[in-house]
Amino acid sequence: MKRLELGLSAPQGFYTCGLKAGIKKSAKPDLMLLASKEPCLTLGLFSSNQLQASCVRYNLRLLKKQQNRAQALVANSGNANCLTGKRGDKDNEAMTKEAAAALKKHFCAIPASLILSASTGVIGECLPMRKIKRGIKDIGSQLSNTLDADRKAAQAILTTDRKIKMVAAELSLGGSRVRIGATAKGAGMIHPKMTPSGKRHATMLCFITTDALIQEQTAQKLFYDAVEETFNCVSIDADMSTNDMALFFANGQAQNPMIKAGTKEAAIFGDALRSICMELACAMIYDAEGATKFVSIEVTGAQSDEDAKKAALSVASSKLVKTALFGEDPNWGRIAASVGYSNAYVDPQKLQIYLGPYKVLHGYEGYQKNKKALQKLFTQKEIAIRIDLGLASGKNKVWTSDLSLEYVRFNSAYHT
Amino acid sequence: MKRLELGLSAPQGFYTCGLKAGIKKSAKPDLMLLASKEPCLTLGLFSSNQLQASCVRYNLRLLKKQQNRAQALVANSGNANCLTGKRGDKDNEAMTKEAAAALKKHFCAIPASLILSASTGVIGECLPMRKIKRGIKDIGSQLSNTLDADRKAAQAILTTDRKIKMVAAELSLGGSRVRIGATAKGAGMIHPKMTPSGKRHATMLCFITTDALIQEQTAQKLFYDAVEETFNCVSIDADMSTNDMALFFANGQAQNPMIKAGTKEAAIFGDALRSICMELACAMIYDAEGATKFVSIEVTGAQSDEDAKKAALSVASSKLVKTALFGEDPNWGRIAASVGYSNAYVDPQKLQIYLGPYKVLHGYEGYQKNKKALQKLFTQKEIAIRIDLGLASGKNKVWTSDLSLEYVRFNSAYHT
Repeated sequence: MKRLELGLSAPQGFYTCGLKAGIKKSAKPDLMLLASKEPCLTLGLFSSNQLQASCVRYNLRLLKKQQNRAQALVANSGNANCLTGKRGDKDNEAMTKEAAAALKKHFCAIPASLILSASTGVIGECLPMRKIKRGIKDIGSQLSNTLDADRKAAQAILTTDRKIKMVAAELSLGGSRVRIGATAKGAGMIHPKMTPSGKRHATMLCFITTDALIQEQTAQKLFYDAVEETFNCVSIDADMSTNDMALFFANGQAQNPMIKAGTKEAAIFGDALRSICMELACAMIYDAEGATKFVSIEVTGAQSDEDAKKAALSVASSKLVKTALFGEDPNWGRIAASVGYSNAYVDPQKLQIYLGPYKVLHGYEGYQKNKKALQKLFTQKEIAIRIDLGLASGKNKVWTSDLSLEYVRFNSAYHT
Repeated sequence: MKRLELGLSAPQGFYTCGLKAGIKKSAKPDLMLLASKEPCLTLGLFSSNQLQASCVRYNLRLLKKQQNRAQALVANSGNANCLTGKRGDKDNEAMTKEAAAALKKHFCAIPASLILSASTGVIGECLPMRKIKRGIKDIGSQLSNTLDADRKAAQAILTTDRKIKMVAAELSLGGSRVRIGATAKGAGMIHPKMTPSGKRHATMLCFITTDALIQEQTAQKLFYDAVEETFNCVSIDADMSTNDMALFFANGQAQNPMIKAGTKEAAIFGDALRSICMELACAMIYDAEGATKFVSIEVTGAQSDEDAKKAALSVASSKLVKTALFGEDPNWGRIAASVGYSNAYVDPQKLQIYLGPYKVLHGYEGYQKNKKALQKLFTQKEIAIRIDLGLASGKNKVWTSDLSLEYVRFNSAYHT
C-alpha cells in the first residue's frame, strides 16, 4: 500500500470541494460536495440511535430503493438537521435537488435520486436553506480532483475538530492500480455503533471513495468489518449521536479484475480499508474534545467478543477512569470497578489488569510494586490498558481519550 | 412523622460514635461504631458490582448464616479495603473481632459473628490495621446516644462529601412511639444498584436504625422498596462502586404491636422509611462532587418501568447533557440524543420532552419558542426534565447532578 497525499478525489473519477456557505457562525467552511463520473456501488452504515437525523433516514431509504447505487454526496456541518420535523425532511431533499441542478450545470447529469446527504452540528434547529442553496450553486463550479479540493472537502465537514482528517492510498491489485480516498470528522458525541439498518447515533462522519471494481457482497463484508473494528471501537464521551454515518463509494473506474471474496486481492483491499479506517479513527481520538491522552483498552479472555467489548467500553466510558487519566494517576481501582459494573461476566479471582507492561491486579489482589514506574507511565501521551478476564478467548480493543477540564469548559459553552 | 434532630442513636437501644483513627491523610474522622443493646433483625442491600469489597462479601455471608440477625457495625472511611486479596479479608475479620472485644469491655457482649463491617475510600490499598485496632479500642468507650455521637458517626463515614447526612424521625404506631434514625454518605462513584444478593458497585453507604418491632418479610419489602425508589435512582457519575451498602437494623425495643404486611402501621412505617431515604439520597445529589445543579429526570409513557429507568439513567449519565447543565444551556438536543441511544424503546413520533413547564420536543420536531424562558430556567439551581415516551404506562424518576469543571479538577487530583 502506497500512501498518497490526497483525499476523497484520489481515486479516478471522483471530484470534490468544500466552501463557506455561512451555516456556521464561525464563518469556517461548512458545505461539501462529492461526485463520481459514474454511478457507484454505495454502502452505508448509520447511527443506531433511535432518533435519526433527516439525512440518515433519507440515505437509508435511497440506498434501499437504488439497491446500493449512488453517485454523489452533499454534506454540511454546523447544523445536524435533526429533530426538525417535516421541514427538516423537506430541507434535506431540497439539498439533494439543488446539488443535482448544480452538478448538471457544472459536472454531469446526476439525478437527485442518486445523491446522498449528510449533516452534522447543532440538533433541533432548521437548516438555513437560503445560504445552503447559494452555497451549493457556488460549489458546483469548484469541483476538482486536487489536493486543495480534498482539503477543502475535509475541512467543510468538521465541527469541533481542530484538524482535518484525510487519507489516501494506492494498491496494486491484479496488475491494476487501485486507489482509496477517505475523510472523516469526529471530536465529540462520539460513541458510534453504526449498523446497516442504522439503529444508534454519534456525530462522526466518514466518507470513503475507491475506483476499485469490487463485488457488492465482498465490499459489504470488507467495509462492515473495517468499520466494526475501527470506528465502532472508539468512544470519546459515550454519547452516541443521531447523525453518525460511514459511506463507501466504489465506481470501478480502475478497471481492475473484479475483486471477489476469498481472493488475495480481497485480502489486500480489506487490509487497506481497515488500515485507512483505523488511521482516521485514531485521528479522531487524538483530536477528541479537550483530549490530552490517547488510550487503548484491550480486553482478552472474555466469555465472548461481545463481552470483551462491553468491558472495554465500560472502562472507556467511566468518568472516574477518564479524570484519573487526565490527572495522570495510575488509578487501577477505578478501572477494576468499571470492569466490575460492566455487563460482561467477570470472575474476580481470574481478572488481571495491566497498565503498559506492569501487572497491577490479579484476582482480588492488587500489586503495590512499580508505583514510580506507573506514575511515569501515566505522564506519557499514549497509555495502554490491558484487561485479561481469564475465562475464554473473547477479545476486543477500543480507543478513547481522557476527560479534561477543557472538555467540560468546551461542552458547557458549545451548543451542539 | 415528627422530625428529630438526631441520627443513628435516635431509636431506643442504639449507641454510636465516630473518631479520627488516622486512616485518612486529612486527619478527619474515619472510624465509626454502631451497636444495639439487643440483637436486631438486620437487612442488607449491597453493590451489584462483580468486584465486591471484603466488607460486602463478609456481610453477605454473615447475614445469610445468622438468618438476618446482627447487633453492631464497624465502619471506616479513607480506605475501601477492596481488591486487597486474602489479607483484605483477614483485616476485615480482624476489625469485627476487635470491635467485639471493645464492645464487651465497654458496652455489652456481642460476638464478632453478629458484627457487620463497612469500608469506603481508596481501592486496592491495605487497611492500616494498627491504627484501626487502636481506634476501635478508643471508640468502644465513647459509644453514646447523643446528638454529638450521631454527628461524629455521620462524619466518620464521609469521603468526598462536604456535609454530614443524617435524619431521624418519630412515628406513633398503634399507640407506641417508634423511632427511625439514619445516616448516609455519597459524593462520588455514585450510581448504585443495590440488591439483596449484591451484584453491582458505587460507594454510597446508608445505615438505618429503628426500635420498631416489625415482621421480617414486611421489613424486607418496605426497606427494599424504599432503597429501590430512592438510592437506586440517583446517579452522580454513572460509576458504580464496589462497596455500596444499605443496612437496616430493627431491635424491637419500642415494644410496639408487631408491624405486619398490609396494615395501616406498615404503610405509615414504609412511608417514613421512604421519606428518610429520599431525603438522604437528595442530600447526596446536592453534595455531589463539584455539583452546581440538582436535576430530576422523570420518564413516563414507557413500555415498562424498567425501560423508563433505562431512558432516565441514560440522560443522567450523558457527559454532554451534564456539561450543558453546568453551562446553563437548555440543550434538549443532547437530552433527546441520550434518550435515543438508551436501550429503552423509543418511537420518535411519540416522544415528548419538557424542560420545567415548557415542551421543547414532540415527535421529530423541536419547538423554537420560549428560548428566553428556557435560558432563565436553566440558571436555576434545581432543574426538572420530563420525558414522555408516549407508549404505555411505564415510569421512573431519577436524580442527578451536573458535570462541572470542579468535578474534573477534583477527580483528576483525588485518588479513590
